Amino acid sequence: MEESLKQIGEFGLLGHIEKWLKGASIPQSDVRRFPVVLGIGDDCAAISVDDDHLLLMSTDILVEGVHFNTAYFTPEELGRRALAVNMSDIAAMGGVPAQGLIGLALPRSTPLSFIEGLYKGLTDTGMQYGIQIVGGDTVLSPGEVMLSVSILGFVERDCIVTRKGAKPGDLIMVTGTLGGASMGLDILEEMEKSHATMRPGQDELSNQGDRECRRSSCQEIIDRFLVPMPRIKEGRAVAKNHLVTSMIDLSDSLSQTLYLLARSSDIGIKVNKPSIPITCKVRELIRQRSKEPHDYALAGGEDYELLFTIRAENEKRVRETLKNETGVQVTVIGEIVPKEEGILLADRNGSFSELVPTGFEHF
Amino acid sequence: MEESLKQIGEFGLLGHIEKWLKGASIPQSDVRRFPVVLGIGDDCAAISVDDDHLLLMSTDILVEGVHFNTAYFTPEELGRRALAVNMSDIAAMGGVPAQGLIGLALPRSTPLSFIEGLYKGLTDTGMQYGIQIVGGDTVLSPGEVMLSVSILGFVERDCIVTRKGAKPGDLIMVTGTLGGASMGLDILEEMEKSHATMRPGQDELSNQGDRECRRSSCQEIIDRFLVPMPRIKEGRAVAKNHLVTSMIDLSDSLSQTLYLLARSSDIGIKVNKPSIPITCKVRELIRQRSKEPHDYALAGGEDYELLFTIRAENEKRVRETLKNETGVQVTVIGEIVPKEEGILLADRNGSFSELVPTGFEHF
Repeated sequence: MEESLKQIGEFGLLGHIEKWLKGASIPQSDVRRFPVVLGIGDDCAAISVDDDHLLLMSTDILVEGVHFNTAYFTPEELGRRALAVNMSDIAAMGGVPAQGLIGLALPRSTPLSFIEGLYKGLTDTGMQYGIQIVGGDTVLSPGEVMLSVSILGFVERDCIVTRKGAKPGDLIMVTGTLGGASMGLDILEEMEKSHATMRPGQDELSNQGDRECRRSSCQEIIDRFLVPMPRIKEGRAVAKNHLVTSMIDLSDSLSQTLYLLARSSDIGIKVNKPSIPITCKVRELIRQRSKEPHDYALAGGEDYELLFTIRAENEKRVRETLKNETGVQVTVIGEIVPKEEGILLADRNGSFSELVPTGFEHF
Repeated sequence: MEESLKQIGEFGLLGHIEKWLKGASIPQSDVRRFPVVLGIGDDCAAISVDDDHLLLMSTDILVEGVHFNTAYFTPEELGRRALAVNMSDIAAMGGVPAQGLIGLALPRSTPLSFIEGLYKGLTDTGMQYGIQIVGGDTVLSPGEVMLSVSILGFVERDCIVTRKGAKPGDLIMVTGTLGGASMGLDILEEMEKSHATMRPGQDELSNQGDRECRRSSCQEIIDRFLVPMPRIKEGRAVAKNHLVTSMIDLSDSLSQTLYLLARSSDIGIKVNKPSIPITCKVRELIRQRSKEPHDYALAGGEDYELLFTIRAENEKRVRETLKNETGVQVTVIGEIVPKEEGILLADRNGSFSELVPTGFEHF
């Protein structure tokens, strides 16, 4: 029987695509201008534009019902988020985002106000970060709303950071805290479900009031999902100061991200579970739930924090640089080890077990 | 009642988006590197990368059931077409395509062989034209297959051609012949319909045989739709020799394209209907059909030829240059007139009527 996506999964497919593309690369000696420096397999591709700079580019697709639900995203939030997740890819290379192209597939019944709100989210975020929306394509969709965002940015040639440079002995750090976005999504989905199962005749307004009230008490954690803050300044600070050996953004779950890093850098990883910085509000709200705080960090994604590796002797400089230039908290969560040691998670007692990559699986 | 896409239409929406983006432009004096030279409203956006070159970029979305039907596209043809329609945008600016990013939204049941075929079409076409696929995104689609292709290219700063430079007195030319692609699509759709309405008990194999036979006699015209040939060499030849005042690609119908040109260049247009070059095979196959040959050219799109304007005194040079450098046939189909004269079509008797833009309307 023929293999389908369901069987090989998202990361299996990625491996196939990399193989197909490798077989079809254009000899860069034949490319007169703007040769490719970095192709598929990192957060962005990179192209040489002049002696000092690389152009970075990345594309992301967001599909209704998979990446977002218009029941809990306002159009503005959706626009903001679409641009933010792409900016995060530029941040992970140490770059500065500069231009965006927007592709939209829309059902015929879409109200103009939805598209206007979406563009308001895109352009407000663009203006905040200095990104100009320079074009796109708008077409009919017979089903879901779909957005594709392609972003261009640049980075100084000697500052680019990839997923490839991690070496045994390096420390693994993350910016900010993890788990907030996926708990935020959980809460939104529960609120939707409780709304959908409301008894007929039940007072809609009072239920709406309940939801608003619950929503406002959880707003901070919900916003972690709805309006992620790409770590542009943080990525720039460590890249410009040549402080990191590799970097990747946390769009996938922490466990999946560590696997991607290990594969790219050809190394092993030891992570100390108690060191993983969990979003405060996750600890606060965890009592009412069946999951553990670390489940949200290790298996939930969408935090859009940065994960990077540094030489151990640079730890103090990294902390100081990030504190002075951005104010962000950073945490050492583990270290790079030789590939043969595998990818391991140490629990509170210091005993290691294999870290199994879990998280959202597209197929 | 609130306006929906159905009421304002694709071109109405484009006007809104241009307005929203204009209100949100980043002061280019603030942009330290790679400022935007040309934003939304042309075939590509353009960014200044060095003293001599502009980077071009464009994005297109293709949706199953809207832009393609897997009943008549092989995955290879679909990949080829997806890249070709984007290359055509680069051609229309006089540029050279260089890199591509591929976004894919796929149902869980998609066979791996479909994706492999799609990538074969993309990479074969890429290698043929010197385009490297450098990355992308692959996600789940709950419904249709969707592709987004973003392409980068470059053009010498003094060679870029936009939709803006047409002036009264200029001649309007098109490369190749028109109408073939939309008749090809008509034939494919009829073949599908006759297959779908086959009587129960009817011999499937003999019907299949009929279809193959009909298909092979119409293959030339069907290929005009399935595998368009982007006019890269042609666009380069006229741009490098500074022979054209404006240029646009014929992805939309001829009548829609003329309206887009008129709007961008702020001019009027007179087109001579008998001069429009109709694909030979369209004339040959037209007897069995209810449409006229010119309906396919004026209202059908997807020919991916180039339409450009030239100073009248350059006609001979343009013909010679294109003949020598590319071998393509070019035809004068009309002229640019002052805006006040409108957009007019002259029939066989030389009497003018208003040219109404018709063609595929997404919403």
